Amino acid sequence: MSATPRTPRPAAQEHDAPMLLAPHRLLPADPAARRVAWDLYEAVREAPIYSPHGHVDPALLLENARFTDPSALLVTPDHYVTRLLHAHGVPLDRLGLGGAEATPGGSREIWRLLCAHWHQLAGTTVRYWLTDQLAGLFGVRVTPSEETADAVYDQVAAALDSDAFRPRALFERFRIRVLATTDDPADSLAAHRALRDDPAFAGAVIPTFRPDRYLDPGRPGWRPALADLAAAADEDCGTYRGLLAALRRRRGYFAESGATATDTGVPDAAAEPLPAEQAERIHRDALAGPVPPADADAYRRDLVFRLAEMSCDDGLVMQLHPGVVRNHHRPTFERYGPDTGHDLPAPASFTGPLRPLLDAFGTHPALHLVLFTVDETAFAREIAPLAGFYPSVYAGAPWWFLDTPSAMARYRSAVTDAAGFAKTSGFVDDTRAFCSIPTRHDTARRADAAYLAGLVTTHQLDEAEATRIVVELVRDVPVRAFKLASGRAGRRGAA
Amino acid sequence: MSATPRTPRPAAQEHDAPMLLAPHRLLPADPAARRVAWDLYEAVREAPIYSPHGHVDPALLLENARFTDPSALLVTPDHYVTRLLHAHGVPLDRLGLGGAEATPGGSREIWRLLCAHWHQLAGTTVRYWLTDQLAGLFGVRVTPSEETADAVYDQVAAALDSDAFRPRALFERFRIRVLATTDDPADSLAAHRALRDDPAFAGAVIPTFRPDRYLDPGRPGWRPALADLAAAADEDCGTYRGLLAALRRRRGYFAESGATATDTGVPDAAAEPLPAEQAERIHRDALAGPVPPADADAYRRDLVFRLAEMSCDDGLVMQLHPGVVRNHHRPTFERYGPDTGHDLPAPASFTGPLRPLLDAFGTHPALHLVLFTVDETAFAREIAPLAGFYPSVYAGAPWWFLDTPSAMARYRSAVTDAAGFAKTSGFVDDTRAFCSIPTRHDTARRADAAYLAGLVTTHQLDEAEATRIVVELVRDVPVRAFKLASGRAGRRGAA
Amino acid sequence: MSATPRTPRPAAQEHDAPMLLAPHRLLPADPAARRVAWDLYEAVREAPIYSPHGHVDPALLLENARFTDPSALLVTPDHYVTRLLHAHGVPLDRLGLGGAEATPGGSREIWRLLCAHWHQLAGTTVRYWLTDQLAGLFGVRVTPSEETADAVYDQVAAALDSDAFRPRALFERFRIRVLATTDDPADSLAAHRALRDDPAFAGAVIPTFRPDRYLDPGRPGWRPALADLAAAADEDCGTYRGLLAALRRRRGYFAESGATATDTGVPDAAAEPLPAEQAERIHRDALAGPVPPADADAYRRDLVFRLAEMSCDDGLVMQLHPGVVRNHHRPTFERYGPDTGHDLPAPASFTGPLRPLLDAFGTHPALHLVLFTVDETAFAREIAPLAGFYPSVYAGAPWWFLDTPSAMARYRSAVTDAAGFAKTSGFVDDTRAFCSIPTRHDTARRADAAYLAGLVTTHQLDEAEATRIVVELVRDVPVRAFKLASGRAGRRGAA
Repeated sequence: MSATPRTPRPAAQEHDAPMLLAPHRLLPADPAARRVAWDLYEAVREAPIYSPHGHVDPALLLENARFTDPSALLVTPDHYVTRLLHAHGVPLDRLGLGGAEATPGGSREIWRLLCAHWHQLAGTTVRYWLTDQLAGLFGVRVTPSEETADAVYDQVAAALDSDAFRPRALFERFRIRVLATTDDPADSLAAHRALRDDPAFAGAVIPTFRPDRYLDPGRPGWRPALADLAAAADEDCGTYRGLLAALRRRRGYFAESGATATDTGVPDAAAEPLPAEQAERIHRDALAGPVPPADADAYRRDLVFRLAEMSCDDGLVMQLHPGVVRNHHRPTFERYGPDTGHDLPAPASFTGPLRPLLDAFGTHPALHLVLFTVDETAFAREIAPLAGFYPSVYAGAPWWFLDTPSAMARYRSAVTDAAGFAKTSGFVDDTRAFCSIPTRHDTARRADAAYLAGLVTTHQLDEAEATRIVVELVRDVPVRAFKLASGRAGRRGAA
Repeated sequence: MSATPRTPRPAAQEHDAPMLLAPHRLLPADPAARRVAWDLYEAVREAPIYSPHGHVDPALLLENARFTDPSALLVTPDHYVTRLLHAHGVPLDRLGLGGAEATPGGSREIWRLLCAHWHQLAGTTVRYWLTDQLAGLFGVRVTPSEETADAVYDQVAAALDSDAFRPRALFERFRIRVLATTDDPADSLAAHRALRDDPAFAGAVIPTFRPDRYLDPGRPGWRPALADLAAAADEDCGTYRGLLAALRRRRGYFAESGATATDTGVPDAAAEPLPAEQAERIHRDALAGPVPPADADAYRRDLVFRLAEMSCDDGLVMQLHPGVVRNHHRPTFERYGPDTGHDLPAPASFTGPLRPLLDAFGTHPALHLVLFTVDETAFAREIAPLAGFYPSVYAGAPWWFLDTPSAMARYRSAVTDAAGFAKTSGFVDDTRAFCSIPTRHDTARRADAAYLAGLVTTHQLDEAEATRIVVELVRDVPVRAFKLASGRAGRRGAA
Repeated sequence: MSATPRTPRPAAQEHDAPMLLAPHRLLPADPAARRVAWDLYEAVREAPIYSPHGHVDPALLLENARFTDPSALLVTPDHYVTRLLHAHGVPLDRLGLGGAEATPGGSREIWRLLCAHWHQLAGTTVRYWLTDQLAGLFGVRVTPSEETADAVYDQVAAALDSDAFRPRALFERFRIRVLATTDDPADSLAAHRALRDDPAFAGAVIPTFRPDRYLDPGRPGWRPALADLAAAADEDCGTYRGLLAALRRRRGYFAESGATATDTGVPDAAAEPLPAEQAERIHRDALAGPVPPADADAYRRDLVFRLAEMSCDDGLVMQLHPGVVRNHHRPTFERYGPDTGHDLPAPASFTGPLRPLLDAFGTHPALHLVLFTVDETAFAREIAPLAGFYPSVYAGAPWWFLDTPSAMARYRSAVTDAAGFAKTSGFVDDTRAFCSIPTRHDTARRADAAYLAGLVTTHQLDEAEATRIVVELVRDVPVRAFKLASGRAGRRGAA
């Protein structure tokens, strides 16, 4: 530290002013590049949102109830937020997890914990998102801190009390054109159907078929899941053949209810067919008792293969995301359940594991296979090369731990040279935090504008084509990859 | 650095003009960095090309026939191009693969398909290369599209009709100093020898010894390959010892014919000696019938080890590139054969697998081991650290899926800190598309100028030394790594 | 950030002048970003150094003898330097390794070899560090070369001859607040204790407990190590239980001698408990003779697990760094011993391997687990996500092959989005080259200032908070991660 104390100068004001959102945030600092990036961003900043992959509960929009309080909206249900506070030593029960009785101070106390750790979250995308929501959506103008926590809380709470902040009003304000949820195959989709039939709601909210519960015959929940599915599909799931029939039938029901896609999370990307009798044998064994891990793996890999086969038949887009170790910390899982912030990435590979699936279906005209990864090394090494050969393969957007400004920049750098823009999926917000949807899409639009500006200023694209691309990235690209022009999404005006 | 100061065209218009090549393309946008990068680039833009690793057919230069048409020059034989069109749903037979009868519209129809997909290729390096060739070499000034396809076709076709576009004339115009091809050990090298003896051709075209066909006793082509080699070398390849003798003899023949290097593609980098009797046993078994994969792997790893040993004896540079899954899509392979765009990268490692080889030969003064990878994570993690200790190891240029502007930047960033410039290989174009050679080298020169400009503007190098380095990178570095000053290449003026 | 605009030295000359250190080196070239980065750097350029992880011999400071000559200071003992010269064909014995008799020309001849290869080291971090030391510390103004070698040598030698360049004087001049060494558990720590008791020395030099010699019962040195430890701890190490007791006791002794941390290098990050009787059985077997690799691995993984358990009890910070293949080149190891430049990185993973350890201790309030890697792919994929959930986990600084300007930038880009700054370790110099300590810390400070300036100019942070962070990164962050406010380090004024 220098001998003479420095007094920081008020550079441009905008970024020194507390919680004022700088219009140029995330865009390049260089004036020429910023000008180009700004123009590109302007072309899409107000564009409608296509959200083909997320975790919002459709009941939220069906019921259209007011959000109860700031913490219940922005902290407790968002494991992106709670995990970071936990990393700084805040026990999850103090954040409202594991039952309300655990947080005697209630919502306000949770909010104070968030604000007290605000500085420690500096640089994280979670804080960027929260800032964008607090300042952009709720008009907060003071930086959260222990001192300002109550004032911020009150301001947000007051807003939530108004009708303008009910879910449907926000859905309109956010300009959401299509919102896909994530649903179990046994789900009745009652909320979706009620929403579709509600004349007061014009939005397109569509389900996504997520069969993860049926993939691992080694998990305790597998047998109960089969029972649910058998009831929902009116098929006997006592055989593997029955399970496949039930899945097929429910896919049909999902498609009829507006779904255009499935989504599957797997420990690895392997997909390989088993002889039918072998799959049946493992299914039978698993109904009778525990199966060895090798059997469970073989079973899952066959089932992933069969899901691709079904996609060729019914045209539902197949999303696949391997490489996450779920519920890494057993004590936290046992106390708080799943989706509590300790699903953690591991190395992932695609080229080898997907070979049997792509041999069989890689050039099938009905298949769209969107590959997501949390191991970004796979983007340049495998996903872009695969998307640059197989007509069925789309390079999924940077996702989960990678849906951050810098990871988005690395993604475009890794993927574009080999696969361009037209074989990518478009951004997916993957969120259960409703108010973060426009924030996340805005982040992606800024990141893409910044990337494209780099191509323009280095003369790899001209501005006219870059403008065309930035617009396509928020509309044509997801509409094509996720087939949103077809079915219910299309009828609601997605195309 | 140019003698006369250059005044580049005003940046404002240049990138809006259709298909005009901006002089500053790929150089940094920041004015100060661009000025430095431009001066560095100027120092090498006209420098001769050393191409020590590629796939041009020597008969092209021997026969010196006119290229028949634009698609046969720029589309059909270049799997970089066809794979991307295939990814957008164009069947390969519509691009001229699998026999001409498959494309009734012929060359012009293929060209129209390329132009119709031009916008979808935006951002890809393939389109950058094609733009550079169309605009820079053929003087095309309109952007390819469905509308302009025929006009562009006609303009290129007209050029190809002139003697100035015959292979030898282009060889001169491209300023190619050394061109290495890739050749099977059983090849007679007749074209090379005829070319060498042709008084009308002064260029240095040298073969490269590529023994891949002999490495995997589990492949159907292995036994026929042995027969070819036995005939060419006049050695009995019925024993492993005989195979080694035949390879040694052919290496001598290659060296005598101008080769300075070998090249080997392997699924992984492992190289480990087997006891002689074990290698003989596997060789015998493989002649008699199928061998188990473990035997085939052990055999290959021993053979890679022996190839390194031979390099210590005869001084041929050893190139090794692991980590590619060949012919990934079986149906495409069965219909169209190899090298049709679906060789795909997988994770690769070097430190562990190469240990036995480097223990034995890593400090041998005659060994040059150039390591290539399509898994760029290996650059910083393994290849640069290996090249920063072992005198024999050179960090191969970013290659194949990685010979793109952004991957080149990442390569320098990953490799330079630990290995500098002097232990890299220099750029290799690795191409079978003859007209893309100067384009690809120009891309690398621009990328290196941009990288070096970054070191200059951040005061890690001064401009004088940066200029010295950028010149060395296109001349001294490849000449040293590939030993181009020796033998025929040297006699033809390479040094 | 000063109110008065700064006029940095004219850029034109500064980087052309031989060996003049440009004040703005490593900072961004863009003028606006450079201004911000410079102000951030100014806030820490003179700040004291916390060095919680390094390899300086405490006897150096205890004896406080003059450094004998330039090569013995800057070349021979620094494997970062010797490995690069070796990569360019200089045998290690010509650099003073393997006994002085091997270098008849002595120190001056070694120095000439370094200077003759100066240009070949262009772009490497090693040359950056040496330049910084020669120009910044010794006032050298000519660029090293064959021609200038003797003059540079004489200038450095003359400086070393003065009392101002004795170790303790440099320790003061470098403003080292805490210096941690690396020590075997059996070490008496005599030098540390003598230094602590020396009234003429006020610095805090603390040991670090490094039990690597005891982890692998398959290595020849394991049994002698046990004997040393048994003697030091006065425990019978004939049983595994006895070994654990001895380690516990020595940890207590280290803590009492000022240690706040342990450090462990392992081939992989796996840590998994064994049943006690199984560990005892392997221990017994290993005392009797060779054990199979699977046993040795299981033993090590249990022992790593036990070390974490001990950290929960005694509060010593646990440092773990997997993924290095030690002594890669056997002939060099046999001739010159360990730490001679051929420890080489391999792929590393953390999420899966650490799961049992983190299940057991991940939320223990006493555990600090600092994870280092030489496989930078793990930063974004695993280390940042782990540090963003587990309160015990800290993302270790880029280290060893990665403590370079560009790798530091990649590290911040990879880690910050998910884990912020507050869950990182702060810079560690990890050096045995005493005079490189301030150079390396300065490099990190510049890299962090540059990174933070990027966040400021893209409006992700305001300058005031960025200033606060850059200061925390050199003080509060390492003090917290390494618990330097406690014990001896704290008493010597570290907090």
